[in-house]
Parts: sequence; C-alpha cells; structure tokens
Amino acid sequence: MPLNVAQKLIKEHLVSGEMTPGKEIGLTIDQTLTQDATGTMVMLELEAMKVERAKTEASAQYVDHNIIQEDSKNPDDHLFLESAAKRFGLHFSRPGNGVSHPVHMQRLCRPGRTLLGSDSHTCANGCMGMLAIGAGGIDVAMAIAGEPFYVKMPEIWGVKLTGKLPDWVSAKDVILELLRRHDVKGGVGRIIEYYGPGLDELSAMDRHVIANMGAELGATASVFPSDEEVKRFMKSQGRKEEWRELKADPDATYDIHEEINLSELVPLIAKPSSPGNVVPVDEVAGEEIYQSYVGSSANPGYRDFAVAAEIVKGRQIASGISFDINPTSRQMLSDLVADGHIASLLSAGARLHQAGCNGCIGMGQAPASGRNSLRTTPRNFPGRSGTREDSVFLCSPEVAAASALTGKITDPRTLDMEYPDVKDPDQPTVDFKLLEEPLPYDEAKVTELHKGPNIASLPDMEPLPDSIEVPVLLKVGDNFSTDEILAGGARVLPFRSNLPEISKFAFEILDQDYYNRSMSVREQTGHAIVGGANYGQGSSREHAALAPRYLGLRVVFVKDFARIHWQNLVNFGILPVTFTNDEDYHQLEPGDVIQLNNIREGIQQGYELTAAVKGKNKEIKVKHALSDRQVDIMLMGGLINWVKHKQ
Amino acid sequence: MPLNVAQKLIKEHLVSGEMTPGKEIGLTIDQTLTQDATGTMVMLELEAMKVERAKTEASAQYVDHNIIQEDSKNPDDHLFLESAAKRFGLHFSRPGNGVSHPVHMQRLCRPGRTLLGSDSHTCANGCMGMLAIGAGGIDVAMAIAGEPFYVKMPEIWGVKLTGKLPDWVSAKDVILELLRRHDVKGGVGRIIEYYGPGLDELSAMDRHVIANMGAELGATASVFPSDEEVKRFMKSQGRKEEWRELKADPDATYDIHEEINLSELVPLIAKPSSPGNVVPVDEVAGEEIYQSYVGSSANPGYRDFAVAAEIVKGRQIASGISFDINPTSRQMLSDLVADGHIASLLSAGARLHQAGCNGCIGMGQAPASGRNSLRTTPRNFPGRSGTREDSVFLCSPEVAAASALTGKITDPRTLDMEYPDVKDPDQPTVDFKLLEEPLPYDEAKVTELHKGPNIASLPDMEPLPDSIEVPVLLKVGDNFSTDEILAGGARVLPFRSNLPEISKFAFEILDQDYYNRSMSVREQTGHAIVGGANYGQGSSREHAALAPRYLGLRVVFVKDFARIHWQNLVNFGILPVTFTNDEDYHQLEPGDVIQLNNIREGIQQGYELTAAVKGKNKEIKVKHALSDRQVDIMLMGGLINWVKHKQ
Repeated sequence: MPLNVAQKLIKEHLVSGEMTPGKEIGLTIDQTLTQDATGTMVMLELEAMKVERAKTEASAQYVDHNIIQEDSKNPDDHLFLESAAKRFGLHFSRPGNGVSHPVHMQRLCRPGRTLLGSDSHTCANGCMGMLAIGAGGIDVAMAIAGEPFYVKMPEIWGVKLTGKLPDWVSAKDVILELLRRHDVKGGVGRIIEYYGPGLDELSAMDRHVIANMGAELGATASVFPSDEEVKRFMKSQGRKEEWRELKADPDATYDIHEEINLSELVPLIAKPSSPGNVVPVDEVAGEEIYQSYVGSSANPGYRDFAVAAEIVKGRQIASGISFDINPTSRQMLSDLVADGHIASLLSAGARLHQAGCNGCIGMGQAPASGRNSLRTTPRNFPGRSGTREDSVFLCSPEVAAASALTGKITDPRTLDMEYPDVKDPDQPTVDFKLLEEPLPYDEAKVTELHKGPNIASLPDMEPLPDSIEVPVLLKVGDNFSTDEILAGGARVLPFRSNLPEISKFAFEILDQDYYNRSMSVREQTGHAIVGGANYGQGSSREHAALAPRYLGLRVVFVKDFARIHWQNLVNFGILPVTFTNDEDYHQLEPGDVIQLNNIREGIQQGYELTAAVKGKNKEIKVKHALSDRQVDIMLMGGLINWVKHKQ
Repeated sequence: MPLNVAQKLIKEHLVSGEMTPGKEIGLTIDQTLTQDATGTMVMLELEAMKVERAKTEASAQYVDHNIIQEDSKNPDDHLFLESAAKRFGLHFSRPGNGVSHPVHMQRLCRPGRTLLGSDSHTCANGCMGMLAIGAGGIDVAMAIAGEPFYVKMPEIWGVKLTGKLPDWVSAKDVILELLRRHDVKGGVGRIIEYYGPGLDELSAMDRHVIANMGAELGATASVFPSDEEVKRFMKSQGRKEEWRELKADPDATYDIHEEINLSELVPLIAKPSSPGNVVPVDEVAGEEIYQSYVGSSANPGYRDFAVAAEIVKGRQIASGISFDINPTSRQMLSDLVADGHIASLLSAGARLHQAGCNGCIGMGQAPASGRNSLRTTPRNFPGRSGTREDSVFLCSPEVAAASALTGKITDPRTLDMEYPDVKDPDQPTVDFKLLEEPLPYDEAKVTELHKGPNIASLPDMEPLPDSIEVPVLLKVGDNFSTDEILAGGARVLPFRSNLPEISKFAFEILDQDYYNRSMSVREQTGHAIVGGANYGQGSSREHAALAPRYLGLRVVFVKDFARIHWQNLVNFGILPVTFTNDEDYHQLEPGDVIQLNNIREGIQQGYELTAAVKGKNKEIKVKHALSDRQVDIMLMGGLINWVKHKQ
C-alpha cells in the first residue's frame, strides 16, 4: 500500500496499536526537546523516576522562555537545568542561544526521526521530514527514559501547494490562509502534510514558519517531505551526512484533501484575539499601531529579519513606534550582523533584544494599553502579550516592517519600493558550540543537581489505596479550565520548579481557602473535587494536576473531562471518574464525605464503583475510561512510580 | 584671582550667594536630563506648575531605566514621557537609544555649561568641562522652568593625575583607586576636579568613566577641563562648533589636594557590597563567578566593549557563565557591529541585550543565589542586582572579560595574550536622529499629554494653614531611611507615575495600617509623624515626601533630618521641625493630638513654635532651619505652588 510521509514516519516508529484514525498508538521517540518553562519539572520528574541517562538518540534542554532574571529564581532555574542536562546526558543550550525550535533545526533535527517536545510549537521541526509533536512534560520525561509516546492515530490531511508566492507575500501568509479557511480547531486530531509543486519555492525555513503554526490549527503535527531543499539546509549546517530522503509514495493518498495556490495569496493578518481571525491586510490597513515586532518561532529565519531590514534600510521608523527585533538564534544573529542587516535595523530606530522567546510568551515587550501591536508571533490570545485587554495582530515580517515605517497597519505592496526578495544564506555561520554536548556517562553520573532555594524535588507519591474516605473540598461548574485550576503569568510561573510553593496558587482564583482546607486533611485522608462537563479544558500544563495531587487530591467526580487534563490526572495518580448518571452531579456537595471501597479490583475489572456519601444514605455510581496501561499506572500512584517499578 | 575649572563654571552661573564652601549658592542651569524612572514625576510636576515650555538651552528626556515592559504600565509611561517631551519642548530619546549619560555626551553636552539631571550619575558629563549635578526630580523640574538650582558651595578637591596607565589597567581603575583611598563618603560636599599631565592619556570617554563614579564618592560633581581631547570628541560627533576651551588658570589652587600616579595602578575590584570596598584583583583572584557583565554608565565607551571583545575573540567563555553585554547607546552599538566586535562577543557565547541600563539598576539580569556576579557597573549595594543577599563585585571590562573566559575572578595580566589596547574610533557613527528634536512652540502647546490608566496627575496642594490640630500616626526611631518610608523595587516602581497608588506603599514596611489611618483623617485634619535622629537618610527619592504629603502629612517632629529628605519635605510643603530639647522626643506618642498655632507668622519670624499635646497638659518647643526662600515655599504649600504663583 502506498504511504504518505506521515504514515511512513508513524509506521517506522510504531510499537503498539493500529494505524486506524482514533485508535491509540504507541510510537518510539528518537529525539526530545524541553525548554525552561516546562523543563524544570521534566528534570525533577527524571530525578523522581530515578532515570540514569537519556535513552534517546538526542535530547536537548533549551533556555529561551524566561531569560529576564528579575531576581535569583530565574537564573537558579537556568543553573538547575544546566546541571540536569549534564546529569541525564542531554545537550544544553544556554540563555542567549535562541529559541528551541530553530536551534534544534540547525543543530539536531534529522529527517525520518520522531521528536517529542514539551512545547506546543515542537511541530515546527516537521519542516525537516520529522514527526515532531508537542506534549506534556511527563510524556517527554517518559520519552527521555526510553518509553513510547501514546497518542490517538490522527487523520492525515494532505495540503497540496501549487503556484508561486507573489512579491510581498511569504510563508507566514500560507499558514494564515489555512487558519483563515479552517480556524483554530481545523487541525484537531489531524496531521497536516504539505506536498505538491509549490514546495519547490519554499525554503526549509519557510516550511518551518508553516509547520510551526500547525499548533494554532490544533493539529497533532505538521509534516513536510525531506527533499533536496532539506538536503541543502542540512549541508549548510555542516550535517549533510545526517540527511536522508523521505517522500510520499507516488500513489499515496490522504484522509482529507486541500489545495492552496500560492500565486493567489495576498498579505494576510490575524486580527485580535485569535490566530484564526484572519483577513487580508488591506481590510485593516490604516489602523494606528504602537508596536511592530519581528521574531519568534513563527518567523525565525534569517530571511524574515533580512527582509524587514531591507525594507527599513536607509529610512526611519515612525515616531512613537516600538520596533522590536527579537533574534531567534545566536547563529542567525551572527549572520544578520555580518551582512549589515542589524546595522540597517538599528539605524532605522529598532530595539534589538536578546535572542529568545521574549514578548512572544509575554516575558517583556508588552504593548501600551489601548494600542495595537503587530507581531510576527504565532499567538494573539487575550492577555498573552502581558497587557490586559491587549490588541495584537499577527502578520508576516513584510507587513510588520512596512507598518513600522508608516506607524499604521500597512499592506507592503503599497510601499514605493522593489520587493527585497532575500534568501537564506547558503553558507550560514555554523556554531558547533551552540549546544553543549552531553557529558560522558562516567562524568554525568556523578554530576550533582544544582538546586537553588526555590527548586524542590518531587515528593514520593503513594500507590492508589483500596479504599478511601475523603471530603469534597470544592464543587465547580461546567467548562472549568486549567487556567482556573492553576494560573499562569509572571506571578505564578517563577514557582514552576517548586511544587510546594506553586501549590499555594491551586484553585485560588475560585477559592482562596482551598489551600488551607486541603492541607488540613492532606495527611489523614486527602480530598475529592466535584466538577461538571468539560472539566480541565484549555492549557496542557501538568501543574494543574500535580499541584492538587500534592495537596492530597485523590479522586475527581465529573460529568466528563477535557482530554489532556484527564491524561495528566492519570499520569499523577489522581483517579478520574465520571457519573454514570449525570444527574448525580447534584447529589454531591462541598463538605460531603465520600467513601469508595474495593477500588483497586474495581478499576482493574472495569466495573462501576459505588461512592457512598457518609451519613446521607446516598450511593452514586461512577465509572472510568482508563486503558489497561493506564490502570497499571493508576494502581502504582502515577507514571513516576510506574517507571521506577519497571526499572 | 586665578580660578580652577569648577570655580570658573560656578562663577559663570552664579545668581545668588557667595562662593564660600558651605554657603548656599544659586546657579543658572543650561541643560537638564531626566530618565524614565524619575522623569514621569518631573513631567507631572511641570504639568502641575503649569510650565509652558522649557527655558533651558537643551533639556532631554531619556528612556533607559525600565524597558522590560512586563505589562502595559511600562510602555504607557514611555508614551506619556514622549508626549510630555513634545508638550514641554524637550528632546526625546526613545527606548533602545541607550543610557542617558553617554547619549547626552554624544548629542547634547557643551563644555562650559551647567547640566542638572534627575539621576545621580549626571556627574558623568563633567568629563566634558561641564558642571553636571544630580538632583531630585522637582529640582530638575524647577530648572526646566528656568529657576536656579540651589546647593551649598562645595569645596574643590583637586586630583592631579600623573604618569600613564599600564597595560590591562584602564579608567575604571582610576576611580576605583580613589574609592579605595577615600571610601563612599570621601567626596561629600566636594567637587572633584581632575588635572595634570596624566589627562593626556585619557580619552573623553575614559574621563566619563571616572566622572561617573564621583557619585559613589558622594561628590556634588566631577569636573574635567575642556581641552584638545574634548575638542576631538566633539568633532567626531559632528559638533565641533559647540566646543570651547575651558582650563584652570595657571596658578589656580584647590581646597584639597590629591595625586594619582597612573603608572602605579593595578587592576582593582570593589568587593561586595559597597563601591568603596576596593582591593587589587589579585587578592580575590580564583573566586568562582556566575556572571560577568559589561556595560552601564560606568563603562559606556566603545573601547570598553571592544577591549572585552578582543579579549574573548576566537575563544569560548567558561561553561555555566552568563556573559551579559549591555550596549550603552545605539550609535556605539552600530560601531561595535560594524567593526566585528559584536560578532566576536556572540561567537564567544555572550548574551547581547538591548541598549539601556538593564541589570545595573536591577531591571533583569539578576545573578543566581549564592553566586558571585562581576560587573562593570557603578554600584553593588546589597540587593540592587535584584537578588536578595547578592554578591556583586565591580571591575573594569578587562577584568570582566578575562573572568568570563576562566569562570573565576581573574587578573587580566595573567592571560596569555598581548593587551588589546583599543581606542575609541575617531569617526564614529553619528546618528542625528538619536534624539527627537523639540517641537516648535505652536505645535508643542497643543500637544496633549498621553496618560495611560496608571498615570495620575498631581493633586493640588493647599497652602500651609496658620494653625493645625493633627494626630501623631507614627513614631519611629533613629536613622529611619527613605527606603523604609517608601520602598523601591519592581513591586513599587511601576506606580511611580501614580501618586494615589504609590501612596499605598508608604511606611508599609513598618506599619501596614498607616495608609488606612492616614486616609481616615486626610480630609479633616491631616496628621503628624515623630522621628529620631538622621530621619530620612538614604536614597533621594522625592516620592518619600510626596506620598506621605498626599496622605495628609503636615508636620514631622524629629531630633534631626538627613539633608536631601529635609529638602524634599520643604519642596512638598511638609513642615520639618526639630525638638529644641531632644528629650521631648519621649513626650510624644502615637495617638497624641498636637496643636500648633500661629504657624505662618512663627516660621516667618523664625521663633520657636509651641506644640501643645491636647488633653495632656504638655507643651513642646520646636524650631525650623528654613531659609527665607524656603519659608516662602512652605507658606505657599510647596514648590509647585510657589512656581505657579511666580508666573
């Protein structure tokens, strides 16, 4: 049977399940990436699992998200990550090296391999003929430990590219066009595979731009073939020997079909406050802006900065505009410096920032209140910029640079100049020192983890008891999100490597006393929470399961769960059950004490459990949806114990 | 009578008083500079004073201190400052242009002029034959409004430089040597004037390094002659015609004498946590470091970065070191880029930051806990880096770069290489657009101040009443500092342009209920505070007077005052009185209600006032030390009213 690229990648890595869309499959993972915001917990999980050394072909720890260092917590995290990379045999990328995705593409990516990363834009490296998937931290920890990654087999969505991009239209407009057509849920349960003659016009880094924002469509991955252009890129990085060809078979088919004629595209823009809110730039042209922002993993290429530089060269940006240049890697910054592009940007009035994620993830560079910000970043969710009630537009570097000159949203085709059709350099700076190599095992095994005062090891977690008697400490309604379970932002994020401290923020948006109540029964009984439908929707942050678990949460009764949070509850040994009869939601109240008996046999046998409400003569039937693998994990008290047991 | 340079500068600008050390003199001010951390309040003061347009030769508003933009408050301040610069006819330097002091030197300084700045390192421009003095915000607002600046006539401290700096020893070591000899109070009440044959070896920017850290000696100003080197610098900046010669008369004398033989200097370092804690580098060589930091107004020159770049060129910094490069101006960064120095730094592993103050004032780049930080910055006061219990050493760029290579504090003379004796370029990039020009008056006068939601105008302040009856809301001991009256740091600073909000932090370190108590009597009576000796020591922040005034503070009873806070109290219409008999400090308690009658006539006549404690049959004698000018200011309710009245 002829296979497309995605199917070939899956088939080569399949260790369990069948390639039928919707069925769980297990995949071996060749490479991993972690960044600092998620990586500290991954490293603590590796420590707790007693992992000796990464079993992957290559795993890299990047420091790119939080590099402001307002106090010692942030640099302490950096030093911890560096020591953990040494201890576990990972590559380490120091602060200032740049954003994980382009750096991984430059130094480590390999066509034909799988990559799992604890960052939702991990899919960017799909541009290199890889199967690159974003996942929760502990899934990546498991992959580092050599375990497969489990996911439901996606549908393969073939997007055929034809034609050639017109002047002033670039790769960003391709992915914005797909978002214009299908909005932010259009890719859920799918892998987007790009093919067709239009590929010939797209450089590897252009494809990175397109693959990256597959995350904004909700896709499991974005996949490109590994062709001559990928070979050229690998060669330019001094890694020609790591290239292999990977193309769809001639008669390969796709589950879903789509075509984009590149020749017909125009400059596009996503209006506030969703990446799916896409219109042609000329529909909003003339709106005044405060900020124009170039950079991020959604426009990380040399070309992306160089084209902006050529547009503003010899000119001056408008008065009052903040023109923020965020280089994405040390290598590329060196090339932009050498070729005079940084000089052009500085002379025009740009602000040149440290290489990293920066404002893209709300770490600095927030726009002024009530003013428009134009960004080449992948996301414009409300408040993500750091400014409450922000107004962020997403666009290409061409639109950003043209608008910086005029101070208004500007269709770059209206500039009175030739299109500077810049290409990526064929012989870029290659910095072999960009990533520190893994230590040899005998040095690694004696490396101590460097823990600053804010870095706390994960506590041991006991196995699931056979019977529990727990008070209901909270009852919430439908669609309760992980943002409400554990907030993000600058107030909470600095404690992401300190479970006891971050737990103080659990549910505090809803109930400031939850922490105290849970601590008062933590040692004796633990507690339960009752929720409605779609419990735990939103962000995949694993702290939203881990922090309540730390506070003694043993069981969650709901109508139904959001998928990723459900997975996270299982991973951390919290029993997720649903009412057999949704109406029973109304039977449970805060303060009720619930008794569950014979739990271990019950969940193994798969029969309904009976929850008795003490002193109320009520009995409620509940059920679970765990796979056999997950039942094992649950009985042992979570993934960490499960891994330790396996060793 | 032959005059030295400082005396000439004072004589040319004297409008009141006599040039007798210790006596108050009034000086006309030709130029001012304000930065963003102090400038927002200065602009609000200009608004409150109803100033139409700056009366100075040149006034510039810089944005360099807080350029992180964690949320909208920070960029809102930037936009406010830009609009205020337009409104009041100031030059404006946008974020990314760099640190005020070197940018002012490049674009606006003029030998023979006076410069008043709301930044303690304003003295740096003394390198150009200017009388450059740091002052509180409202003093600078007054200068912008055309009023003289009043200060006690300093002693002139002549420092004769002889010899020539050895290899690996640079300008920073000269000022560190002066700090080694005289510690951080050695310059109080003095102007340091440098002269002698050793000057021939020091570039204008080297002199900037030395003049800058006059602030760390507590000096009123640092003064250099305007000679051929100053002429060369002005010419290189395209401003030759603004140069004038200014040298001491041949037989000029100094009040105090000192000599430094440059040939005898060695690399020096200030140990934690005082700039006066200076020893030779080799005394602490070998101590491990986390961070090496190049930049700040204390080493802002092209040479300072280029020498660091040449030292690390072709080498790699030590693993685990954060090598932070903080360019100080857009112009200079362009030169460093063009000349390949930025490429050398990047390739060695440096982190290249936005041009500005950054970590020097604790806005990011905090060191890891328990680790040493080596910095070319001017100050290492405890916690200033952002890290509590930090360990910061101050040194030259040579020491910083050498230590980045080894990961340990390193005497650069022990490196196995030739000294890269870099000079500033004779034809640097000159960016005439670096500062936006003042608007013509007809455009300026119709410019609206752009106030974000966090920017509040100053409230009106009523004149001093003739009698008051106020409760004592707080009683504090000796040496109570302005840091305890109103804290700094990232928690409080964002409210510096919002008096009602920042007032909530007044005295909260001591008493969290002070705000509520003061608000409860604010409208009816106001209140009093009782303090011991040296009340209001420390930082010059004017918010420490303004916030309590906003909360209704009318009179402060103490044993004695620290000088600057005393001045600030007067400026904002709070009556500062001292006990005639120090023992009466024990007569007053929180809760006492104090009655003062016939105040206006009393302070005009200069006789003692009698404070009656209601219901306790106690009477306490108090007195003031106001000059006639200050009595006028006090009667009107502060400087802002006084200026409005004059117009």
